[in-house]
Amino acid sequence: KELQEIKKEISDLSRNHSTVQEKGVQFKEQIHEGFRHLDEIVNTLAKHEKEASQLTSRIKSLSDKEKHMDSTKELSKQLGEIKASIKRAKTSFTPETGSVFVRLFLGQVNVKHYREFEKFRLKQEYEKFKKKTNPQFILFVVLLLLYPHSSFITTSWQIWLLYYYVTLALRENILLVNGSAIKPWWIIHHYLSIAGSLTNLLWPFSPAFSHFLPQVTYFSGAQGLVQILTNRYQQGRLYKLVAMGKANIIDVTGESEGWNDDPGWTPSALFLLPFLLFVQFFQLYNSFSFFAYAYTNEFKVEWQVLACGLIFLLLGVGNLTTTMTTYYQKWTS
Amino acid sequence: KELQEIKKEISDLSRNHSTVQEKGVQFKEQIHEGFRHLDEIVNTLAKHEKEASQLTSRIKSLSDKEKHMDSTKELSKQLGEIKASIKRAKTSFTPETGSVFVRLFLGQVNVKHYREFEKFRLKQEYEKFKKKTNPQFILFVVLLLLYPHSSFITTSWQIWLLYYYVTLALRENILLVNGSAIKPWWIIHHYLSIAGSLTNLLWPFSPAFSHFLPQVTYFSGAQGLVQILTNRYQQGRLYKLVAMGKANIIDVTGESEGWNDDPGWTPSALFLLPFLLFVQFFQLYNSFSFFAYAYTNEFKVEWQVLACGLIFLLLGVGNLTTTMTTYYQKWTS
Ligand SMILES: CC(C)(COP(=O)(O)OP(=O)(O)OC[C@H]1O[C@@H](n2cnc3c(N)ncnc32)[C@H](O)[C@@H]1OP(=O)(O)O)[C@@H](O)C(=O)NCCC(=O)NCCS
Ligand SMILES: CC(C)(COP(=O)(O)OP(=O)(O)OC[C@H]1O[C@@H](n2cnc3c(N)ncnc32)[C@H](O)[C@@H]1OP(=O)(O)O)[C@@H](O)C(=O)NCCC(=O)NCCS
Repeated sequence: KELQEIKKEISDLSRNHSTVQEKGVQFKEQIHEGFRHLDEIVNTLAKHEKEASQLTSRIKSLSDKEKHMDSTKELSKQLGEIKASIKRAKTSFTPETGSVFVRLFLGQVNVKHYREFEKFRLKQEYEKFKKKTNPQFILFVVLLLLYPHSSFITTSWQIWLLYYYVTLALRENILLVNGSAIKPWWIIHHYLSIAGSLTNLLWPFSPAFSHFLPQVTYFSGAQGLVQILTNRYQQGRLYKLVAMGKANIIDVTGESEGWNDDPGWTPSALFLLPFLLFVQFFQLYNSFSFFAYAYTNEFKVEWQVLACGLIFLLLGVGNLTTTMTTYYQKWTS
Repeated sequence: KELQEIKKEISDLSRNHSTVQEKGVQFKEQIHEGFRHLDEIVNTLAKHEKEASQLTSRIKSLSDKEKHMDSTKELSKQLGEIKASIKRAKTSFTPETGSVFVRLFLGQVNVKHYREFEKFRLKQEYEKFKKKTNPQFILFVVLLLLYPHSSFITTSWQIWLLYYYVTLALRENILLVNGSAIKPWWIIHHYLSIAGSLTNLLWPFSPAFSHFLPQVTYFSGAQGLVQILTNRYQQGRLYKLVAMGKANIIDVTGESEGWNDDPGWTPSALFLLPFLLFVQFFQLYNSFSFFAYAYTNEFKVEWQVLACGLIFLLLGVGNLTTTMTTYYQKWTS
């Protein structure tokens, strides 16, 4: 009888499995169909964009009298709104390969996601990555302080930083394509950091290098600690999004684990500000030190000294101005 | 009249744009729906897999007499087929994040594509990348031969190799998830190459390093030339796929540019073999040189010498055996 039963269950399984296979074929057709619609939408949007700019120039070439009529102004405004809407639709639909940086690593493939929950996942994974790697960052600083003469440790640290900044820049570029409001400067910031790591890797263990190592190590320590704070701040923001139900991901997938963990105490933007300013002025001070060293040595220094000076200058100025605008926007809105 | 016409066209555009927006909403719903089906399919497959293995153990625990009946054997066979089919369905449907390596760079996000043409694009981009970077590879070898004492050039070269192998390994892992039959060894091969570049970056400009630089440079030159050949071979295979219409991508998107370019002369697998063997024996010879150096110096050598010896040994042995099995499979099928 057991044998009979097994037989029956196998044939049931076989039947059910065929049903799933059919569903699989249907799914592929559905997706295929869906993306064909996407192609249509993208093409139509491009057409509309062209029409809109033709209309704009036609309005421009009206006679001065006509241009100043209220109805014309009204039309201009309407057209502006349509244009803005087309642009928004384009960003949310057109497949994109990300910036050159993403293409360097992944090639020219679409990195735009069309499921809300996948987009949210990208962000979540990004913050999780920062959280996990912060202790490693600090650990390296401690090792550098303990063994300042080990070329093994300094080189490992530079290679690790290279990895760290490359993956951050990759993920941020992908986030940007997927609707994040991250300011381009923060990505450029990571490109500059990559340039910094490369400069350090290409710098032989010279007297100048040893001269600057302690200062750069202290700076990295400060940066590491402040990064922990900013990461907590960003996690707090993410948590609030989920709690307010704005990120409607959980109901979509049933997968909520780890996505609504209360991160505990998180600093406010205002609390962060002095720490950020401290690190950013430290960057400017580093820049000054490198240039002063070059100056007192009558610029007979390795090119890495000047490169580091320039990179820290750009980092400091860019970070300061971007942070200032961000806080200004926060307070005025 | 012009004004009237503009007004009319703007209101037309506005209406058309609303239609596209509706289509956009529909598309999102469609995709959403599609992926909900996918979730269902994936869950059902997991359930079926469990049922199938329970049935297998029930068959195993039948009495010996029953087990040897023809009908039981028939059942076992049927079950085996179902299991294989479930497994195939799982690989084609279950979202995957790729290996740990992909997760290190992109985080835990799905890298499986569900459009045939996207899958093909991945492969095409992969081969295009190799084609574009081969000349850079050769250029570096030439620079190394011209300036063997420049730490700038050797370090740049190692950093470039690091980038090169990281992106290859990333793309290959993603290809694997998307149904490529690439053998895992070729990916491991690139992990080992990454380890090799890291070892070299961590190697100060010592006498041992200088001792090995010329030999490693000649080896890289040979490898670079053979890579050009293997790349042409793979492009030829891809071209044939498109020409035979197996890769039915072009009709899907209308985008055919660059995808069916005749690559011109391409070597056959047989033609490649001696060149591959040459490089692979060169790897074994390198390994031998490093170990012999360590031996004659009574193993009082930098750890990098032993690491390089080991990496070349693994590369040589792994490449040889994998190439042999590949050719054996080709000839017997
Ligand atoms: C000033 C600061 C705290 C403001 O953060 P915020 O409140 O999230 O700012 P915004 O509202 O403009 O954020 C918009 C988006 O950009 C992201 N973002 C902001 N600053 C970012 C940064 N430095 N890196 C990465 N992403 C950032 C936010 O997460 C948000 O993403 P979302 O649209 O996907 O949700 C933040 O920009 C910051 O930490 N800056 C300092 C960085 C720095 O100087 N580092 C060097 C020293 S450690
Ligand atoms: C031997 C060789 C020419 C066979 O190539 P092949 O005919 O494509 O082999 P297979 O039929 O097994 O290929 C199966 C898949 O693996 C891919 N593949 C095979 N060898 C690969 C390699 N070395 N790197 C990356 N992908 C490879 C193929 O492109 C194919 O992909 P697909 O399923 O997406 O179409 C190839 O494996 C090779 O070049 N090996 C030598 C590599 C080497 O030793 N390099 C070091 C010296 S340069």
